[in-house]
Amino acid sequence: MTGRVLIVGLGPGAAEWITPEASAAIEAASDIVGYSPYVERLTLRANQRVHASDNRVEMERARLALTLAVEGRKVAVVSGGDPGVFAMAAAVFEAVEDDSQWLKLDIQVAPGITAMQAAAARLGAPLGHDFCAISLSDNLKPWGVVERRLRAAAEGDFVVALYNPASKARPTRIVQAFDLLRSLKAPATPVAFARAVGRAEEALALTTLGEADASLADMATLVVVGSSETRFVLRDGERPWMLTPRAYGARR
Amino acid sequence: MTGRVLIVGLGPGAAEWITPEASAAIEAASDIVGYSPYVERLTLRANQRVHASDNRVEMERARLALTLAVEGRKVAVVSGGDPGVFAMAAAVFEAVEDDSQWLKLDIQVAPGITAMQAAAARLGAPLGHDFCAISLSDNLKPWGVVERRLRAAAEGDFVVALYNPASKARPTRIVQAFDLLRSLKAPATPVAFARAVGRAEEALALTTLGEADASLADMATLVVVGSSETRFVLRDGERPWMLTPRAYGARR
Repeated sequence: MTGRVLIVGLGPGAAEWITPEASAAIEAASDIVGYSPYVERLTLRANQRVHASDNRVEMERARLALTLAVEGRKVAVVSGGDPGVFAMAAAVFEAVEDDSQWLKLDIQVAPGITAMQAAAARLGAPLGHDFCAISLSDNLKPWGVVERRLRAAAEGDFVVALYNPASKARPTRIVQAFDLLRSLKAPATPVAFARAVGRAEEALALTTLGEADASLADMATLVVVGSSETRFVLRDGERPWMLTPRAYGARR
Repeated sequence: MTGRVLIVGLGPGAAEWITPEASAAIEAASDIVGYSPYVERLTLRANQRVHASDNRVEMERARLALTLAVEGRKVAVVSGGDPGVFAMAAAVFEAVEDDSQWLKLDIQVAPGITAMQAAAARLGAPLGHDFCAISLSDNLKPWGVVERRLRAAAEGDFVVALYNPASKARPTRIVQAFDLLRSLKAPATPVAFARAVGRAEEALALTTLGEADASLADMATLVVVGSSETRFVLRDGERPWMLTPRAYGARR
């Protein structure tokens, strides 16, 4: 077979965060498969076929990409952020088992900058020590699993990056998560809301777990909740830096 | 002040994973500060000053960068991977409090592809669901904190990316970590050793927690330990894909 699938991470939105590998993959593709807002970011040639689709149809998108590759097409499946982090890579590798032809395909992943890295870069160094990434979406997992993981993250005193903190269908996930974390962590724990980092509507807000206003989070927001070591580094007239020091317990 | 510090992530080693932002930051810098092997990767102009240093002197490197910036220099602090993940960003933001001049500086972070993303891209989609990143280095934290976090990661059934799994001074960290995880997780849990991904000496090995040979890990290795959902997708004559499905419990 001559076709192949390249699962490409476009990063959070800014062109300066798209890797040369990702750019080359888009350039070399005969077919682009992806969620419409991601496909719309791209500058394509007239002879590149575009297969844009709605949200929440990841498996259909994955199967379409694999079908096109078996036909000999060079397919780029585009994903925001890193396709390996709450994005399209898992969907494609879940789908490959459905057809023995698909298991023979050349499939590669081009990683990208994911939302927590973009947020961390703007905030200072909130992920400077051990951390977890948890999606608050319960479309594909029971909410009990989310709660179990939030408890474990608090027990391990990890910094926590919360993906998909709220959606129109379920605006209260982040409210429930904050309530649970407040029962387990100090009210002074630093919290950041990082919205649409790298895009025109970028907005950052710093607060504490005790005072965090869950209504600041939407689907474009990445929420970072600190560990017991995370602190704000205050500056005159500027937003404080958010820092999780490399050493544990050193300054306490 | 006209000087500034840009903390730049070079990714795991491959040029195709260096973002345009990082390349531009190196190009624009008057001074490059970093650990020698990272500085040596760069193609620099004759009028760019290089300040290469040994490992384990992160704070000295951070202070040098801040001192140069106060003198008006445009400093790039280079880091492998993502500077925000077990790298130089935390050191710089820890140092800024030592001098009121440093707190006034323009400091920015350019994120990069970190080792677990590069490893995940080669392996399939092992980070396709909630995960933790834990450094096994106990240079700056008590080993008890590492154990607490490994226990919590198992309790939360996270996929775990283990950074700094072994060093010449402490080759047994990964042995101890595997022993602890074996007491808490199933022997069939998929494990991957991803060494030097993106560099000439790249090597991947797949195994299970029950059979994992800790001697495969050195300081250039990223170890991924699956959740209860992580599995291998078998292929004829090729390395299996490592997959953590997006759904929790769906196929069991």
